[in-house]
Amino acid sequence: MAHLSDIEIANQVEMKPITEVAKTLNLTEDDLTLYGKYKAKLDVNELVKMKDEEDGKLILVTAITPTPAGEGKTTVSVGLADGLSRIGKKSMIALREPSLGPVFGVKGGAAGGGHAQVVPMEDINLHFTGDFHAIGAANNLVAALLDNHIHHGNALQIDSRKITWKRVVDMNDRQLRHIVNGLQGRVNGVPREDGYDITVASEIMAVLCLANDIVDLKEKLKKMIVAYSFTGEPVTAGDLKAEGALTALLKDAIHPNIVQTLEHTPAIIHGGPFANIAHGCNSVIATKMSMKYADYTITEAGFGADLGAEKFIDIKCRLSGVRPDAVVLVATVRALKMHGGVPKTELGEENVEAVKAGIVNLEKHLDNIQNVYGLPVVVAINKFPLDTDAEIKAVEDAVSAQGVDIVLADVWAKGGEGAEELAEKVVELADKPNNFSFVYDEEDSIETKLNKIVQKVYGGKGVELTKVARRELQELEKLGFGNYPICMAKTQYSFSDDATLVGAPKDFTVTIRNLKVSAGAGFIVALTGAVMTMPGLPKSPASERIDVDAEGNISGLF
Amino acid sequence: MAHLSDIEIANQVEMKPITEVAKTLNLTEDDLTLYGKYKAKLDVNELVKMKDEEDGKLILVTAITPTPAGEGKTTVSVGLADGLSRIGKKSMIALREPSLGPVFGVKGGAAGGGHAQVVPMEDINLHFTGDFHAIGAANNLVAALLDNHIHHGNALQIDSRKITWKRVVDMNDRQLRHIVNGLQGRVNGVPREDGYDITVASEIMAVLCLANDIVDLKEKLKKMIVAYSFTGEPVTAGDLKAEGALTALLKDAIHPNIVQTLEHTPAIIHGGPFANIAHGCNSVIATKMSMKYADYTITEAGFGADLGAEKFIDIKCRLSGVRPDAVVLVATVRALKMHGGVPKTELGEENVEAVKAGIVNLEKHLDNIQNVYGLPVVVAINKFPLDTDAEIKAVEDAVSAQGVDIVLADVWAKGGEGAEELAEKVVELADKPNNFSFVYDEEDSIETKLNKIVQKVYGGKGVELTKVARRELQELEKLGFGNYPICMAKTQYSFSDDATLVGAPKDFTVTIRNLKVSAGAGFIVALTGAVMTMPGLPKSPASERIDVDAEGNISGLF
Repeated sequence: MAHLSDIEIANQVEMKPITEVAKTLNLTEDDLTLYGKYKAKLDVNELVKMKDEEDGKLILVTAITPTPAGEGKTTVSVGLADGLSRIGKKSMIALREPSLGPVFGVKGGAAGGGHAQVVPMEDINLHFTGDFHAIGAANNLVAALLDNHIHHGNALQIDSRKITWKRVVDMNDRQLRHIVNGLQGRVNGVPREDGYDITVASEIMAVLCLANDIVDLKEKLKKMIVAYSFTGEPVTAGDLKAEGALTALLKDAIHPNIVQTLEHTPAIIHGGPFANIAHGCNSVIATKMSMKYADYTITEAGFGADLGAEKFIDIKCRLSGVRPDAVVLVATVRALKMHGGVPKTELGEENVEAVKAGIVNLEKHLDNIQNVYGLPVVVAINKFPLDTDAEIKAVEDAVSAQGVDIVLADVWAKGGEGAEELAEKVVELADKPNNFSFVYDEEDSIETKLNKIVQKVYGGKGVELTKVARRELQELEKLGFGNYPICMAKTQYSFSDDATLVGAPKDFTVTIRNLKVSAGAGFIVALTGAVMTMPGLPKSPASERIDVDAEGNISGLF
Repeated sequence: MAHLSDIEIANQVEMKPITEVAKTLNLTEDDLTLYGKYKAKLDVNELVKMKDEEDGKLILVTAITPTPAGEGKTTVSVGLADGLSRIGKKSMIALREPSLGPVFGVKGGAAGGGHAQVVPMEDINLHFTGDFHAIGAANNLVAALLDNHIHHGNALQIDSRKITWKRVVDMNDRQLRHIVNGLQGRVNGVPREDGYDITVASEIMAVLCLANDIVDLKEKLKKMIVAYSFTGEPVTAGDLKAEGALTALLKDAIHPNIVQTLEHTPAIIHGGPFANIAHGCNSVIATKMSMKYADYTITEAGFGADLGAEKFIDIKCRLSGVRPDAVVLVATVRALKMHGGVPKTELGEENVEAVKAGIVNLEKHLDNIQNVYGLPVVVAINKFPLDTDAEIKAVEDAVSAQGVDIVLADVWAKGGEGAEELAEKVVELADKPNNFSFVYDEEDSIETKLNKIVQKVYGGKGVELTKVARRELQELEKLGFGNYPICMAKTQYSFSDDATLVGAPKDFTVTIRNLKVSAGAGFIVALTGAVMTMPGLPKSPASERIDVDAEGNISGLF
C-alpha cells in the first residue's frame, strides 16, 4: 500500500448523507439541523425530554504516559466505534473538536488518522459548524465589555492590574501573547497590559463543555470571574450584565455536532477545552446525548490516564453525573521504549528490553484505573508499522500476567476491522460491575485534594505549595471555592511534574506554583509550571502547503 | 397597532423552509447547502456553468444624503422586492451581511425593519453562516504569518514600521485600536506598534466581495499588500505563501447565502465591506447569481448616491461587468428638512418650507443619476409616521416638476403592499434604454479621476492633495497602480468633505489627505479625513438587554 495522507485516504471514501447516518440511531431529519449534507447539529432540548430514558454504556479511551507525538487515542477511539458497529452494536463516538490555529502550524488536522478518521475532515479541521468562532466571539465580548466599563468610569472599581480575562483568537499567534492596549489617548480606551490565548483556552470553552443545558450554561457564564476590584472583590461576567448576550452568541454552539467515521459510524464532535488549564473532554451534553442514542458511546480524555482520565472522573463525571462503564488504555511500543529509557531519536529501533523496562508506566496506569478509579480495563496496543513481534509479545506477556486483557488494535491500517477483537472485549467488560470512585471528596480541603491526586494517582509523596500558591489557596477558600474540584495543569510526559522522569517515578513531590479558579466552569486550576496558552507558528508553517482548486477542493491538510 | 420591535414583528411571521423559497427560483434542494431549515448557501460553481444564460434586470437602491439615522434603503429594498413578488414578478434581493460587533453596541440588528425585513433576523445578525468569522480568521492568519516571518529572521526584510496589515475582530472594541504587541522577550515575537480593525474593514472582505470566482479570489488574495520592505518594496500575502490557506479558510464563505423576506421573497445576503475605506456593496458573486435566478434583482449600496452609487458603478460594475437597469432614489422628509437647515433635534416638527429648501440635495442626486451615471430613476419616499401630507406633497411636486416619477413607499408598516406602485414603476423603468457611464476612465491619472468625481458627482471645484497624499500618489503610480479605480472615503453627510455643509454645496474643494492601495481588492482608497475602522461600545451597551430563554429563544435584539 502506498503511503497516503489522511486527507487522501478520507477522499477515497464516499460519505453517506448525515441524514442516513443518523437513521441508524433512529433519528429522523427533523431531529437534525443540517450544515450541508454531511454535518448536522442535534438539539440539546431533546436531551431534556429524554432525561428519564435509559443510558447506553460509556467507554473511556485513555492512554499511558505519551510521547510528544501522542499515542493515537483518537484513532483507536474511532476504530473501536467502527469495530463495535461491525460486530452489530449500535455505537457512537463522542470526541473533541479540533482547534483551527494548529492546522496552519506544524500539526495539520486532528480527526483520527489513516482508516480510522471522522469526516468530512477538511470541514472538521477548519470552521466546522462555527462553534469555536462563537466561543471566541463570546470571550471577546466579555473583554470588550470589561474595558468599556473601565473606559466609561469604572463603577465596579476594577483594578486593571488584576484583570484575569484575556482576549482569544483561534490562531497560533505568538505576537499576541503579551501586549499593551488602550493606547493613544482618552477616546481609545485605558492603557493596560493584556494578552491573548488561543480560543480553546477560553474559560467559555470549559463552561460550554460542562454545561448540562441552556439554563445551566447561562448560570455558569454569569459566574465567570473576569477581574478583581481594588479591594480584592471578584468581578464577574454577571456584573457586566453579559450572560444573556453570551448565551445568545452560544445559542447554536451549545447543540452537539454529528458527523460520521469513514465506516459511517455516527460521531458526535463537540467542544474541545485545553487538557491542562481545563479538563480536556468533549461536552457533557454530547456525551449524554450519545448515551441516549447509542448502546455504546466511545469517548476520550486528553493526555495520559493520570491527567485526562483523572479529570474526566473528578471533574466531568462529578459535575454531570455521567459514569463510565469500562476503560480502554491505549499503549504503544514506542512510548513503552521511551519509558524504558530509550532516547526519542532511537524509538524506531527494536529494543525488547527497553519495552520490558517501560512496562512499569503501563502497570501504574492499570493499577490506577482498576484500584483508584475502580473501573474494568482492557489494554489496546495501537500498532505502528515498525513495531516488532517480539516487542509486542513483551507487552502482551506483561499485561496478561497482571490478569488484564490486552488486544492488538490495527486501526490506522484496517479501520474497524482492526478493532473487532477489542470491540468484543469492551462489550464483555462494560457488562461487569464496577467500583467507580472519585479520587477525592468535594469536602476535602484544597490541599487534601491535591495530596490525594499526587499520592493515589501519580505515586508521589504529595504536594508542596509555593508561597504564592498558599496565599492564593487561602484567598480561594475565603471566596467560597474550597469545595470545587481540582484541574491539574501538569506536564503530560511524566507522572511527576518533571517531564524527564519517565516510567513510574516514586518519592517525588509536586510543586504547585499557582492556584486559580475557573468560577464559571466550576474548578480550581492547580498550575505546576508555565502553561503555553498561545502557540506559535514554525519557520515554514503548514499554511504554505495548503491549496484550493477551481472547484473548491482542498489539498495539503494532513 | 402597538409599536412592536423588529424581532417581535419577525417572530409573528412563520418562515417557509428555505427549500420551498428556493423553489420559486426553480432551485432544488440539490442546489442548496442547508444551514438549518431557513438558511442555505448557493454554489458559486453554478455561476460558472450559467455564464451564458440571460441575466435578469438589476435595480440599484440608493439614497439622498442621509441623516445619521439612515434613510431606510434596506427597508425599501426589501419592501420593493416583496412588492415585485406581489405583482407577479420573479424577484430577489441582494444585500450586505450585517456585522456582529455593532449588535452589542447602540445599533442592534440590521436586516431591514418593520414589515420589510429579512429573516431569520437573529441568525443573520449573529453568526449567520460564519462568513465573517471565516474572513476574520483569514485576516488574522495573514497577520500571524507576517509576524512569524519577522520572528524567524525576516528574510523579506519587512520594515515593521511600514506594516499596513492590521488584525481584526468582529466586535466594537476601542481598547484594541492602538496596541503594542510582541512584548516580553525573544520567544514572544518582535515588539511593534499594531492595531485592530473591525472585521468588515478587512481588505479580505472587499476581496471576497469583488471576486468573480474561486480562482479570481485566490489571485486577489495573493496580491494583497501587507507591508513594505526597508527599501520600499511591497510585501504581499503571496510573498508569505498565504493565498492557498486563505482560500481554504474562505471555501464556504465564497458561496452566497440565501434566506427570505417576511413575505417569503428569496434574499441573497452575502458580504459586507465598509462603505468608506471599501466599496460598500454585497458580493459580485451574489449579484451575478441573483441576476441568473431572478428576473428582478434589487440591490443597494452604502450611504448616499454620491458615495455608494458612485462606487457601485465605478468599482463594482467596472471590475465585474455587472450593469444596473434602473435606480431607486430613497428620500425621507426628515432628511430633506435637515438639508433645508433644520437642526437634528427639530426634525420631528412639520416644516414645509425647510422641505422645499432641502430639495436641492435630492435634485443634485437626480441629476447625477440621470446625467452622470446615465440611468433611469424613480424617487421613493420612505414614509415615517410623523411626515405630514403637506410635507410629502412638497417633495412630490418638486420631483414631478423635474419630470421624474415619485412614489410613496410605506414598507415599514405595510411590507410589500406598501411598495406595489413602486414595483410597477421599477418594471417600467428597467425596460427603458439607458446611457450607463462610468464617472472616469481607468486610463485617467489618479488626480484626474479624483477631480472628475468631485466635479461631476459632488459639484465641487476639485481636489487638493496634501503633501503626504501627493507623495503617496507618486509612489502608487510608480508601483503600477495608476489605473486602479478610486474608492472615496468621505463623510456621508455632505456632498463635500465637510459634514456640516448640507443641501447641495458648491465651490468647495475636497482635500485628499491620504492615498492607499487595496491591491488585492483592486482600488485606491482616497481618504479625506480620519475614518473610524474600530467602533466602541456605549456606556450601556445593547448586550445588557439581550437574553435567551431555556428553549434557546432570543430576546432584546431590535
